[in-house]
Amino acid sequence: MNIDPKMTGLAVGYDVPALPGMDENEIQTPCLIIDLDALERNIRKMGDYAKARNMRHRAHGKMHKSVDVLKLQMELGGAVGVCCQKVSEAEVFARAGVSDILVSNEVRDPLKIDRLARLPRFGCHVSVCVDDLANVSDLSAAAQKHGVTLACLVEIDCGAGRCGVTTPDEAVAIARAIDCAPHLRFAGIQAYQGAMQHMEKYEDRKTKVDIAVTLVKQVAEALTAAGLEPELVTGGGTGSYYFESDSGVYNELQCGSYAFMDADYGRILDAAGHRVDAGEWENALFILTAIMSHTKPGKAICDAGLKAQSLDSGLPYIFGRQDVQYVKCSDEHGVIDDPQGMLRINERVRLVPGHCDPTCNVHDWYVGVRNGKVEKLWPVSARGKAF
Amino acid sequence: MNIDPKMTGLAVGYDVPALPGMDENEIQTPCLIIDLDALERNIRKMGDYAKARNMRHRAHGKMHKSVDVLKLQMELGGAVGVCCQKVSEAEVFARAGVSDILVSNEVRDPLKIDRLARLPRFGCHVSVCVDDLANVSDLSAAAQKHGVTLACLVEIDCGAGRCGVTTPDEAVAIARAIDCAPHLRFAGIQAYQGAMQHMEKYEDRKTKVDIAVTLVKQVAEALTAAGLEPELVTGGGTGSYYFESDSGVYNELQCGSYAFMDADYGRILDAAGHRVDAGEWENALFILTAIMSHTKPGKAICDAGLKAQSLDSGLPYIFGRQDVQYVKCSDEHGVIDDPQGMLRINERVRLVPGHCDPTCNVHDWYVGVRNGKVEKLWPVSARGKAF
Repeated sequence: MNIDPKMTGLAVGYDVPALPGMDENEIQTPCLIIDLDALERNIRKMGDYAKARNMRHRAHGKMHKSVDVLKLQMELGGAVGVCCQKVSEAEVFARAGVSDILVSNEVRDPLKIDRLARLPRFGCHVSVCVDDLANVSDLSAAAQKHGVTLACLVEIDCGAGRCGVTTPDEAVAIARAIDCAPHLRFAGIQAYQGAMQHMEKYEDRKTKVDIAVTLVKQVAEALTAAGLEPELVTGGGTGSYYFESDSGVYNELQCGSYAFMDADYGRILDAAGHRVDAGEWENALFILTAIMSHTKPGKAICDAGLKAQSLDSGLPYIFGRQDVQYVKCSDEHGVIDDPQGMLRINERVRLVPGHCDPTCNVHDWYVGVRNGKVEKLWPVSARGKAF
Repeated sequence: MNIDPKMTGLAVGYDVPALPGMDENEIQTPCLIIDLDALERNIRKMGDYAKARNMRHRAHGKMHKSVDVLKLQMELGGAVGVCCQKVSEAEVFARAGVSDILVSNEVRDPLKIDRLARLPRFGCHVSVCVDDLANVSDLSAAAQKHGVTLACLVEIDCGAGRCGVTTPDEAVAIARAIDCAPHLRFAGIQAYQGAMQHMEKYEDRKTKVDIAVTLVKQVAEALTAAGLEPELVTGGGTGSYYFESDSGVYNELQCGSYAFMDADYGRILDAAGHRVDAGEWENALFILTAIMSHTKPGKAICDAGLKAQSLDSGLPYIFGRQDVQYVKCSDEHGVIDDPQGMLRINERVRLVPGHCDPTCNVHDWYVGVRNGKVEKLWPVSARGKAF
């Protein structure tokens, strides 16, 4: 959705941080801005990679929570659909007409299962993960009630230590139960190694993925031996997608952060020892912030604090500047070391957030910019949809 | 606003986590719940304290960002109005009919200044902070343009090292400029010591506030000597309000977190060495979360991760339970140590968030509960209003 400023009646400030057509320096800060050229290049690059490797790419919607970014990933990057983590996110993508949605997570609450089973009525193919035999009959009953089919993947714990089973026997038992359950279809394996994505060294990440791939192959073989050949083996992120693509067992990628990049992913190194943000992917997402106080020498105060970002993966850094540094964050303010007094009141800088996913989740809008002008205003469609 | 489920057409799940009348165990998780009894007791207690000490209490709206909670603070707690940190927050409170609004922060961007100067048209008294002479003429011009008066407070940096001037001379120069500027009114001193609120020991907090009070007194005396006696000296938080009340110079408090409490404030100690959450204030705010995977012995996985809270002040703890502990947080999941295997799938626990302000800011709704039933559904009215 590109919002037409003449039609909306939206007030800049109260309703939205900017409207298309505005100059970049009129945008109300702090807010998220997207470098549309960089975003489009990242999306095309991942699409080309997946196509060349004969891999499906299911874009991870939990990162951007945006129908508009997803549509770009499908149009420019050939993404086959979306994965997301919550039923409420899936509800947003289903209502927006997305045709293939995987909830790459378990759904256990009775009302949530009911909500999930209503989604195919929007005309989309819906898949969900299972890691417990006891879940199968609940999913089946809800699918039957609503007269739909739910595709179910067995989730394997690849090392993150969260959800997922850890042995081929458990996986086969669950897959068999799915296969036998009315209105469910066994669709394959969910195997995302989340814990290693941010390890700095390529070799360390490879070691972890190798362990995961070994387990995934064992599970796939056990399933095939039981007559339950997995149609889909899906997983992989921005720090590992080349390993899954080389594995010979995965056939679908679930990358998300590549599209926007962030400070934490930017620091990881590729096979040649180069930072990922130095060539593999471009920073496309920034927190735009303005200087709003400068009463002490050497220190500038900006308007982006804890309510403009998540600090779980560290502080943001200031894009394209070596002379100033974001060093401290409180609820509403950021402290910037400015030893040479370079920053002026109302001057704007672009922050690269520490972690894109939870940072996007605090904002209501993406402001897409190109050539110094606001070109797009996209809602963060599934913002706050955590339940 | 109490939302009537019969009237709204709101869908539980997609639109809201719960509706009034539901049982607590039907609430869709994760979401924020408020123990209404505890909230009301906290609000009455602070109101009684301020009244007994002849202090005004201006409730800090940046914490809860809720028109409904503010109204309770005004009705039950005698709060005189609201303070908030952003023009967009002030816009929400002004449109809701709040009569006295202080933006306890500087406003520098031209469009933001214009937005601020429009607010008195909603019928409210509007104040703002100033820490730079250069800001005065911009505020004056905007107030003149809109035919309104803006009250201006000089902000003193009491030790947080962010905004605010640090000497009486600077304060007098700014106050004089405000006093001379058309459509501005000099109203007093903003002096909030934010950096010490979370220091564990009472004596350490007192030492820091004593330094601030000394400076505030010097500034107040210098202003009075210059014929600019401050009508208002405002500041103080949940970790310090008794010091400001005892100071002889402050006449208004700006407490916010007392109403909800959180893990970080709960840990600070009172004069007798007791935790603040052991008697002074009650935990009224919780993240309600449900167990959704339990495939490994000793570990339960819940559905509240980084998108349900801010981790800037540490992990949440599980309210009222010693047998289980929230030990790890990723985007969508929390890992709970459950050594005795006590937690069952779909069982709910209440998390006390590390830091209430930025945690409230990721949620769209407060679910008010009493006696196991949902009684109120309140929007987080100024959620995401950071600009």
